[in-house]
Amino acid sequence: MPEHFQLLKTDSVTAARRGRLQTRHGVVETPIFMPVGTQGTVKAITPQHIQEIGAQIILGNTYHLNLRPTSELVKELGGLHAFMGWEGPILTDSGGFQVFSLAKLRDIREDGVAFQSHLDGAKLFLGPKEVMTIQANLGSDIAMVLDECPPWPCTRDECARAVERSFRWAKQCKEIATDNGFLAGGHHVFAIAQGSTFDDLRREAAESLASLDLPGYAVGGVSVGEPEPEMIKQVGATTPFMPADKPRYTMGLGTPPQILKMIALGVDMFDCVLPSRVARNGLVFTPDGPMNLRNEKYRTDPRPIAEGVTNYTSRFSRAYLRHLTVAGEMLSATLLTIHNLQFFIELTAQARAHIEAGDFGAWHRAWIARYEAGAAERLAGGK
Amino acid sequence: MPEHFQLLKTDSVTAARRGRLQTRHGVVETPIFMPVGTQGTVKAITPQHIQEIGAQIILGNTYHLNLRPTSELVKELGGLHAFMGWEGPILTDSGGFQVFSLAKLRDIREDGVAFQSHLDGAKLFLGPKEVMTIQANLGSDIAMVLDECPPWPCTRDECARAVERSFRWAKQCKEIATDNGFLAGGHHVFAIAQGSTFDDLRREAAESLASLDLPGYAVGGVSVGEPEPEMIKQVGATTPFMPADKPRYTMGLGTPPQILKMIALGVDMFDCVLPSRVARNGLVFTPDGPMNLRNEKYRTDPRPIAEGVTNYTSRFSRAYLRHLTVAGEMLSATLLTIHNLQFFIELTAQARAHIEAGDFGAWHRAWIARYEAGAAERLAGGK
Repeated sequence: MPEHFQLLKTDSVTAARRGRLQTRHGVVETPIFMPVGTQGTVKAITPQHIQEIGAQIILGNTYHLNLRPTSELVKELGGLHAFMGWEGPILTDSGGFQVFSLAKLRDIREDGVAFQSHLDGAKLFLGPKEVMTIQANLGSDIAMVLDECPPWPCTRDECARAVERSFRWAKQCKEIATDNGFLAGGHHVFAIAQGSTFDDLRREAAESLASLDLPGYAVGGVSVGEPEPEMIKQVGATTPFMPADKPRYTMGLGTPPQILKMIALGVDMFDCVLPSRVARNGLVFTPDGPMNLRNEKYRTDPRPIAEGVTNYTSRFSRAYLRHLTVAGEMLSATLLTIHNLQFFIELTAQARAHIEAGDFGAWHRAWIARYEAGAAERLAGGK
Repeated sequence: MPEHFQLLKTDSVTAARRGRLQTRHGVVETPIFMPVGTQGTVKAITPQHIQEIGAQIILGNTYHLNLRPTSELVKELGGLHAFMGWEGPILTDSGGFQVFSLAKLRDIREDGVAFQSHLDGAKLFLGPKEVMTIQANLGSDIAMVLDECPPWPCTRDECARAVERSFRWAKQCKEIATDNGFLAGGHHVFAIAQGSTFDDLRREAAESLASLDLPGYAVGGVSVGEPEPEMIKQVGATTPFMPADKPRYTMGLGTPPQILKMIALGVDMFDCVLPSRVARNGLVFTPDGPMNLRNEKYRTDPRPIAEGVTNYTSRFSRAYLRHLTVAGEMLSATLLTIHNLQFFIELTAQARAHIEAGDFGAWHRAWIARYEAGAAERLAGGK
């Protein structure tokens, strides 16, 4: 059986990697940004739009889909791909993160987490068996193990216990996915390295999980409130101890500069609600930093959002997009989501090209410099 | 110069007509349903969707666009077609109806209507000159004259005064559109026959307006609260006195059976917010009557909305569409709007085919019978 992940090239200056991941629903070229489809839809756009913006893989959220419409119903209707009309690869999280961030009355036990639904207060439980069953029901191409995400900040003892428990849960998830044929069927299971701000725990988490020889590895517990330098330090403290021949994924990240910095640290996969969430409030990304289309100065501006950026939205003027946004029209959310997601996806496509060309290091520093200078100028009232 | 409206065929049993209207932005085959694009967007769908559902012509609302973003800005940005990215024909109303239904503190004078914006209370005025200037700024293919729409019910005297004033305003609008070259440039101006429930006033309105020899005529003041039989009677009291060689338009109508009944009375053009508005609340139209997708019985239903109806939405199951609707996802509004608008547009396409085939009378009665039987069965808990 061929390897499901090919490492095509590693940058000579940074730790950036160019890779290719094989899934049951097709190939994913890495580094890659993955749009988030929380409740069986990437908010505000159709599956056709998802395809047109060049998405190679999207996310689904186990916590949300399990509450509504339930994973049993999705299974009955042919799995998440058929249910939502998306034929490409789908990665699903374990639901654990939402249990920690959304659910009420959490009780973390050795066998899993008991909690109440944020929708109706129903008492529910997610353990390794439950999260693997749900993700099998959904027909996920890449399933994530259950992990315990400690809050930021946390004590070393709390963090060590979370790392140990996350390892035991990862081991159980692998056993379940082996016994039920999930892994043998070509589905992937990725483990998640925790460790908060403790470098030695980060290393311990990465190395112990590596021993499980799973198809991929994620850095978890980042972007949970810590300052950006701390976040980058945590990722940098984890990736060197992950297997080089497996894909690496930082969960829930980040801004465009953050994504480029993570690619330079050797991360291959990214997902974040940022581009789609802020689109619904009129904020768009450009090579010169973010732009708030509600600003009065765009009222008569006939230009597209950003010169040189081509997508369905680029045929419309800033003035029209501002009008839709100010008028509260849904089409604003649709067009700005298309723009922002395509911008993030295209950013990772450019990163791939520059890793291949061998100039990723200089390119990504210049890209970030332009972005940050433009953002500062906009803040100061220019552009 | 060739006639801008060709009457291709008149049904031998009903008064239904098959026609072809030439505009500056292309041909409109009649009878036709026109989606409503109130604020420079057909709510919840993109211009590409508008094209894909087979729309030949859409509406814009002068009242809304004049308040925000203003017709001057739309003109500066190349007109409404360029502004919103729609290359087909656009009909705009005069704004008068919204002044009567939305604005505060109306004062109807001989020279127009003074009112306050429903958005910010700003004091505004719309007279014949203003509505024709605004519609010229928008670059409308079919502009409507300013009219006075009396409330239902109203006294005969009130109604007679509104009919007389509407005639004077229509005459002024024609003069303005002649003097400024709007009509000579191939834009059309349609007059609006009022008359409420008074058959003789309906006839008087239609005949007096016919003397102005405008490119088209509308029936106004219907669907303003009166019972359906009354509404159909009013249209039937108006159309026989409209010029046979000009297109006829009932403003703001209606349900699928109502549209077919109006076609049988000789109406050619329809617009209504009904299909798009109810789509945003989970209601869809089928040949067997309306269907509320929020209903629990569709929770596991793998079928598309309606057998034999093909559009972008028909690839999704009722169960998925119900999930999106219950979860409050914008994609529900988008997919259900696509379905409903395509359903209304396709209904008028079928009407055209049956007028051509010579069996419109029997077909439209059978269509309405199936629709109403299905609606009754759904209400009773079946289907």
